Amino acid sequence: MGKTSFEFERTPFYYETDKMGIVHHSNYIRWFEETRVAYMGMRGYSYSKMEENGVMIPVLAVDCRYKIPVKFGQTVLIRGNIELFDGLRLNVAYEIVDKDTGRVCVTGHSEHCFVDAKTFRPVRLNKQHPDMAEIFT
Amino acid sequence: MGKTSFEFERTPFYYETDKMGIVHHSNYIRWFEETRVAYMGMRGYSYSKMEENGVMIPVLAVDCRYKIPVKFGQTVLIRGNIELFDGLRLNVAYEIVDKDTGRVCVTGHSEHCFVDAKTFRPVRLNKQHPDMAEIFT
Amino acid sequence: MGKTSFEFERTPFYYETDKMGIVHHSNYIRWFEETRVAYMGMRGYSYSKMEENGVMIPVLAVDCRYKIPVKFGQTVLIRGNIELFDGLRLNVAYEIVDKDTGRVCVTGHSEHCFVDAKTFRPVRLNKQHPDMAEIFT
Amino acid sequence: MGKTSFEFERTPFYYETDKMGIVHHSNYIRWFEETRVAYMGMRGYSYSKMEENGVMIPVLAVDCRYKIPVKFGQTVLIRGNIELFDGLRLNVAYEIVDKDTGRVCVTGHSEHCFVDAKTFRPVRLNKQHPDMAEIFT
Repeated sequence: MGKTSFEFERTPFYYETDKMGIVHHSNYIRWFEETRVAYMGMRGYSYSKMEENGVMIPVLAVDCRYKIPVKFGQTVLIRGNIELFDGLRLNVAYEIVDKDTGRVCVTGHSEHCFVDAKTFRPVRLNKQHPDMAEIFT
Repeated sequence: MGKTSFEFERTPFYYETDKMGIVHHSNYIRWFEETRVAYMGMRGYSYSKMEENGVMIPVLAVDCRYKIPVKFGQTVLIRGNIELFDGLRLNVAYEIVDKDTGRVCVTGHSEHCFVDAKTFRPVRLNKQHPDMAEIFT
Repeated sequence: MGKTSFEFERTPFYYETDKMGIVHHSNYIRWFEETRVAYMGMRGYSYSKMEENGVMIPVLAVDCRYKIPVKFGQTVLIRGNIELFDGLRLNVAYEIVDKDTGRVCVTGHSEHCFVDAKTFRPVRLNKQHPDMAEIFT
Repeated sequence: MGKTSFEFERTPFYYETDKMGIVHHSNYIRWFEETRVAYMGMRGYSYSKMEENGVMIPVLAVDCRYKIPVKFGQTVLIRGNIELFDGLRLNVAYEIVDKDTGRVCVTGHSEHCFVDAKTFRPVRLNKQHPDMAEIFT
């Protein structure tokens, strides 16, 4: 794990399952968000602090590939890795792995930009907020 | 159905089910909110318009009793009835009924007040916004 | 709209918004599912009937691109279009459009296969269930 | 904290907030469920193991009172306490407290019975599954 990678352990909540008996596919998109927020916390600049300081990180695109369903009672490792950060754009890759077997259950990506929390206009993070930019590099 | 009652038809979404094969119990609380919003629309003053005009209706309390689980593929009628409105407080009662059999699946209540959207301070709706108060009577 | 296209009207629920004041990006993935279920209903073979008859349609992959955020109070048209169906695989494309302006807010795709509801083994729909296969062509 | 009490730390997820900028009120009902599941894990008989062994714990009723909204960025302590267990019925009380100030944000209760996972018929836990009954006393 490098500086721009992150891993955390997660067990599915019962309310995240559906009648197929597995975690509903939309919830992995939410786990990706949890990963980004946890990553920022680890790097010492929380997402809530960033919003308080006037910057939001909207999602431009997301994709997700479902290989093995995650079930209630299972423990997974969720890994995030910053694939690209150029001050304007942020791309993150994700991998959800069964903790016991190490088998990859889900992979995905998300694309982001940075916007001013009031005007929603794009922000060049490395110019305007170098302290925030720091945490993605 | 009186002026302060409302009924609408709803089919559960697949993502609202859990691994018991039934609608997860937390979702009925969300259906109650849908009922309030739909009621306001019917009375001609939408919830989004109310928020734009500076008033929010937070939930103070909610209760819910589960009698018969609702399943995916079923159609229900969701009924809301304004039990109390005195300008400061709003209490709503709910009933979720199987459309085919008429059997009651879920009952519940919610309690609300009215607050200023910026200050979160209580608003006496009938004094400060008589046009909004109108729709609950 | 051809036989394998579908459109329905939707207003966001309040609980689908997040603190950015817009519909949370994970919910569009759920709207895609609503679209598939509604499409099947329109073609006369409901998803719940399909499950009762022993076939499930898991999601293999999903992607979503966010162009303009959808807000509470807005009405959108959600369009689904079957891009591929060969009896084994099903690909669906989605478009979420502002009803008033016609502007595209969200686009996306999903990929599916068909599996036996008990064994989770792949099902060749056009061979094993021609009546179900019918609705995707 | 006695044997039948439980406390865990939780931070709200971004997707749990709504456009009021606070945790949506329906999510506390889900946190109550997390509490029950975590309690059972602590007592050494996980909810997933219980389901595998043929017993489910449906929710008969729930109530929730909202005193202070929980916000993203905040840390709360969620406390569960078994108020009643007589082998047939289980009542749990909840309290959600701001970790920093100790102020109570949310209180609630849930009522449950025990049913056979296949037949949905009531189960007298202390007679039929004394090892499961053990964990609630």
